[in-house]
Amino acid sequence: MSQFSIAVLAGDGIGPEVMQEANKVLDAVEKKFNVAFNRTAYPVGGYAIDTEGEALPSKTLLGCEQADAILFGSIGGPKWDTLPLEQRPERAALLTLRSHFDLFSNLRPARIYPGLEALSPLREDIAKSGVDVLVVRELTSGIYFGQPKGREGEGEEEFAFDTMRYSKREIRRIAVAAFEAAQKRRGKVTSVDKANVLLTSRLWREVTEEVAKDYPDVELDHIYIDNATMQIMKNPAQFDVMLCSNLFGDIVSDECAMMTGSMGLLASASMNEDGFGLYEPAGGSAPDIAGLGIANPIAQVLSAAMMLRFSMNLTDAADAIEKAVIATLEAGVLTGELLPDDKRENASTTSQVGDEIV
Amino acid sequence: MSQFSIAVLAGDGIGPEVMQEANKVLDAVEKKFNVAFNRTAYPVGGYAIDTEGEALPSKTLLGCEQADAILFGSIGGPKWDTLPLEQRPERAALLTLRSHFDLFSNLRPARIYPGLEALSPLREDIAKSGVDVLVVRELTSGIYFGQPKGREGEGEEEFAFDTMRYSKREIRRIAVAAFEAAQKRRGKVTSVDKANVLLTSRLWREVTEEVAKDYPDVELDHIYIDNATMQIMKNPAQFDVMLCSNLFGDIVSDECAMMTGSMGLLASASMNEDGFGLYEPAGGSAPDIAGLGIANPIAQVLSAAMMLRFSMNLTDAADAIEKAVIATLEAGVLTGELLPDDKRENASTTSQVGDEIV
Ligand SMILES: CC(C)[C@H](C(=O)O)[C@@H](O)C(=O)O
Ligand SMILES: CC(C)[C@H](C(=O)O)[C@@H](O)C(=O)O
Repeated sequence: MSQFSIAVLAGDGIGPEVMQEANKVLDAVEKKFNVAFNRTAYPVGGYAIDTEGEALPSKTLLGCEQADAILFGSIGGPKWDTLPLEQRPERAALLTLRSHFDLFSNLRPARIYPGLEALSPLREDIAKSGVDVLVVRELTSGIYFGQPKGREGEGEEEFAFDTMRYSKREIRRIAVAAFEAAQKRRGKVTSVDKANVLLTSRLWREVTEEVAKDYPDVELDHIYIDNATMQIMKNPAQFDVMLCSNLFGDIVSDECAMMTGSMGLLASASMNEDGFGLYEPAGGSAPDIAGLGIANPIAQVLSAAMMLRFSMNLTDAADAIEKAVIATLEAGVLTGELLPDDKRENASTTSQVGDEIV
Repeated sequence: MSQFSIAVLAGDGIGPEVMQEANKVLDAVEKKFNVAFNRTAYPVGGYAIDTEGEALPSKTLLGCEQADAILFGSIGGPKWDTLPLEQRPERAALLTLRSHFDLFSNLRPARIYPGLEALSPLREDIAKSGVDVLVVRELTSGIYFGQPKGREGEGEEEFAFDTMRYSKREIRRIAVAAFEAAQKRRGKVTSVDKANVLLTSRLWREVTEEVAKDYPDVELDHIYIDNATMQIMKNPAQFDVMLCSNLFGDIVSDECAMMTGSMGLLASASMNEDGFGLYEPAGGSAPDIAGLGIANPIAQVLSAAMMLRFSMNLTDAADAIEKAVIATLEAGVLTGELLPDDKRENASTTSQVGDEIV
């Protein structure tokens, strides 16, 4: 029997209750696929600040180091928003985990599920045009981590600065990730940059072109970030894989997520070169609905499926989970936010959706 | 009689034909408001590359220096896209003009006109919610112009870098522009940043808060750029003035423009501290429809109206042009792209729309 160890970091807000459903699904996978997931829960985020004094306690980091993968819930909330920036859950935990484990490859799929088009903020004909995008975002370099960063000078001439920086190696490895993903999808990579202004974008374009030569079956296009945000609105079905730097990927993946109108369905994977990864829902901690048992657990369940696929190579199990999710949606077992206002009384609870997937 | 001199830079693609209509409208204003616009045309963009060897010939720059304002058409096209980046129309002409004249304050209004909601790529209820946003973008600093920028190293460790940089003075003057604009509108400024990651954004937030104290009648909110691109899709009516740095404003203003679904109606102003400015349509040079007489001249005409308002203080004349544009839209005198596919045979030509406005 194969064994895997998972560091479970449920975090804040709806994190714990949706994580419970992901755990139910993992229990079912253990039985069906003769595999064992040894799971250990660790505190993270605001909860860890309250109980341990910091958003990413060293025992949590150590637990993650010893695991095969991190299953992450969500963190943050108004309670911790007044802390100094460096101590806040998002930065202190999420950015630190990303850079500590060199999780450079961030995959964020966004699709509009048939039958759920009315949730999209886009016009009906656009929402129905077959939207299925995978944003591949570089996650450990660029302007997020580039040095120098600082503040200098006096009075009105005081200035702050950040450095956007990319090496060929950093660009190449994320471009390879995008082309590999496109080969398994519809064979198209759209690389997002601002090469008419930024030198980093020009290098980005050069290296991406080089990588493309190794994937003659994949088509490569380039688009400026300003145009990308327009095209995502106007004609999102034109995109298959969107390859982005850290900052542009932050923007593009959120716009794509919103375009689906169903953030509660969107999972994400952040991986390093060894296949180790952190898997988390794309939506936030939603403190306003935390504890009510109405949050959608699907994004968390699909994050677990990505974990099985990418960090454990359990393709069949991952496929089975994804199929079960689609069947659950098709059966109309839906949490309230997926239903029209006048049908909200038919909403299923968080745990009913989890049970149906199981 | 008041006299103003205008440098007219029609440029490429549809530039010349829409400029002709703007000139007609300015002729009408001269008669009605007893004012003289001394206009001199100068080559710019691809046309200038072809005829003078460079996108911004020195006689054009000199002509702009001697004028009270620049009325700009549009530049660029596939013909010049293979030139080295520094020589291409957009960079060589547009970015140089912006920095030469210190045109730091870029105003880009985007609204969904009543009756034209069906053009918006947004869902009908969102498009009809009363969308009227003014993007105020800093245009002469940030990562577009920040030093150092460069490329260093060897082999796979070769890297490129750009610097995002803002001084308090630079932030303050654009924040003041946003608050002044909000006072004349609905009294709300939403400042867009990435203060959870960037030090420039943190300084941006600090200075914006300081400026807000001088405008107690204006409400100030902050939003992260990733969330901004989501909210523009989900609920654009929540925004009045969006205050952005150069890069974020590039992204936000284009997304807002696309959200209206009618790029041919959108004007923009780029001004310095002396009231000198460059006024141009938000859309591009649209080489595919150039010369056919079907391009929408309204963005160019509204750019002329902004010029009268901001660089010449001719408020009545600017109001009159804007009213005439609304009346033209209401009368259904529309170019083809504003009409549903099955009504395209009712389309008016570029010059018919110009005549109607006159
Ligand atoms: C919380 C924040 C630092 C983070 C980011 O910008 O990467 C978030 O927006 C994300 O996309 O995961
Ligand atoms: C052409 C390009 C350099 C320019 C910019 O990024 O500023 C354009 O996108 C704009 O918004 O005016």
